[in-house]
Amino acid sequence: MTGAGADSPLDAGLHLLLGGARSGKSSRALALAEAAHRARGLDPVYLATAEAHDDEMRERIARHRAERVGAWRTVEAPLDLPEAVARAAGADTVLLVDCLTLWATNLMLADRDAEAATEALIAACDAARRDAAGPVLVVSNEVGLGIVPDNALARRFRDVAGRMNQRLAAAADRVEFVAAGLPLRLKG
Amino acid sequence: MTGAGADSPLDAGLHLLLGGARSGKSSRALALAEAAHRARGLDPVYLATAEAHDDEMRERIARHRAERVGAWRTVEAPLDLPEAVARAAGADTVLLVDCLTLWATNLMLADRDAEAATEALIAACDAARRDAAGPVLVVSNEVGLGIVPDNALARRFRDVAGRMNQRLAAAADRVEFVAAGLPLRLKG
Amino acid sequence: MTGAGADSPLDAGLHLLLGGARSGKSSRALALAEAAHRARGLDPVYLATAEAHDDEMRERIARHRAERVGAWRTVEAPLDLPEAVARAAGADTVLLVDCLTLWATNLMLADRDAEAATEALIAACDAARRDAAGPVLVVSNEVGLGIVPDNALARRFRDVAGRMNQRLAAAADRVEFVAAGLPLRLKG
Repeated sequence: MTGAGADSPLDAGLHLLLGGARSGKSSRALALAEAAHRARGLDPVYLATAEAHDDEMRERIARHRAERVGAWRTVEAPLDLPEAVARAAGADTVLLVDCLTLWATNLMLADRDAEAATEALIAACDAARRDAAGPVLVVSNEVGLGIVPDNALARRFRDVAGRMNQRLAAAADRVEFVAAGLPLRLKG
Repeated sequence: MTGAGADSPLDAGLHLLLGGARSGKSSRALALAEAAHRARGLDPVYLATAEAHDDEMRERIARHRAERVGAWRTVEAPLDLPEAVARAAGADTVLLVDCLTLWATNLMLADRDAEAATEALIAACDAARRDAAGPVLVVSNEVGLGIVPDNALARRFRDVAGRMNQRLAAAADRVEFVAAGLPLRLKG
Repeated sequence: MTGAGADSPLDAGLHLLLGGARSGKSSRALALAEAAHRARGLDPVYLATAEAHDDEMRERIARHRAERVGAWRTVEAPLDLPEAVARAAGADTVLLVDCLTLWATNLMLADRDAEAATEALIAACDAARRDAAGPVLVVSNEVGLGIVPDNALARRFRDVAGRMNQRLAAAADRVEFVAAGLPLRLKG
């Protein structure tokens, strides 16, 4: 069950941070990456899957960006996330993917095969876990704990996002569930 | 707090597996039942509460059915679940009820008294826990962690399902919360 | 991480109980307060944020009220919760705020500044934690674990409620996540 990342959240390895909207999961991932930056001089790379389709999204992206310190490099990867992870991973990097759930949305809207894309992402994270000195942090939303949605597309999205979380959790060295900013260890 | 099922998830006792949609809770329950089947030769019985009202539901049921190995016996119990549990339990069985939440839906649609039905189910599970050699596994959805639903029926459903979960959890030997396929022990 | 409330849920300190609808979080908070009342003779004060706008809400309030024993004093504080906490806290009291999420709703409907109000509440709880002999129990809903809501107001509410939970959790001595009536310790 435990892997390279088992001893400290700053160690190398694949770490999945699951949580609800405004649960503090992204802030916790940022704090872990910045601790790795400060302690070991690693270059933090932020892999953003969000696309600014409207003002609300632009404001959310800007607020997230303002939370990141100067050292961060930001890569936008709304669709080709596995390729972006592969390109960004290096001997001195700590990677943060934020977030899986928006990526799932983008894949569905672009009519891409989400299962194949998930396997490609896991392969890229596996390689990054070997190459990068710091952890590969992946943030994802848990979206299945409310009432069954009325519309079929939302139900399908819930299925896709839930399967993606299960696959990433199975591949991860460490999995945390974050609620109100506090982590609960699920694995590792 | 702990009961007959405290030592291993394969032991006899009532085990409740709570989780969201696509959380992996049913797959985990199947894996536990099949481990009991392999290790101790117990006959696994699948008590299905789902009814195939439409194509989407038929597809979900078929996918769940494909996950089960040949040894499984399937009993459909959309409404009379306590009676089905009582009939299915035997000295060589391991029972899996999947899931409580659809049963709650069916009870509401049929205008049955959900509280009385819940008590009857607990009584049947209590008897099964004494009779069956393997665990009685009960899968249920947590549906109360999203925004308050707009329509009154959904709010009432949320109340009924939530109370049912609380009653089963109080009666259970072991309770797990499953997220992204990973169990978190709540009790036992 | 741990504070004054770390040793027993009956000790003084700020305790946050997070959970979904019908998760049993209010019942658990009531039980903790009543245990403090029985064991140490403390006066339990119920700070209610709910307002009876319609029959459904009136019924919910009445059902919650029926759960409380005779010793309880009830204070209605739909908006001025920090002031009510300050007035209610005393050397022989155990306070229960139920719940933060309805307070967030009321603040939004009244167009009040939720962040400033949250800081005022934390200051009032800090003072109460010093003055009150029993715990200050605060109940709140986790509402961010479902599908993204269709309407913008619900999304904004989710943000406000989520940030409020994070701030209270950071200030609290103990935080529990309650599911199906069972607590899971997040902090303290």
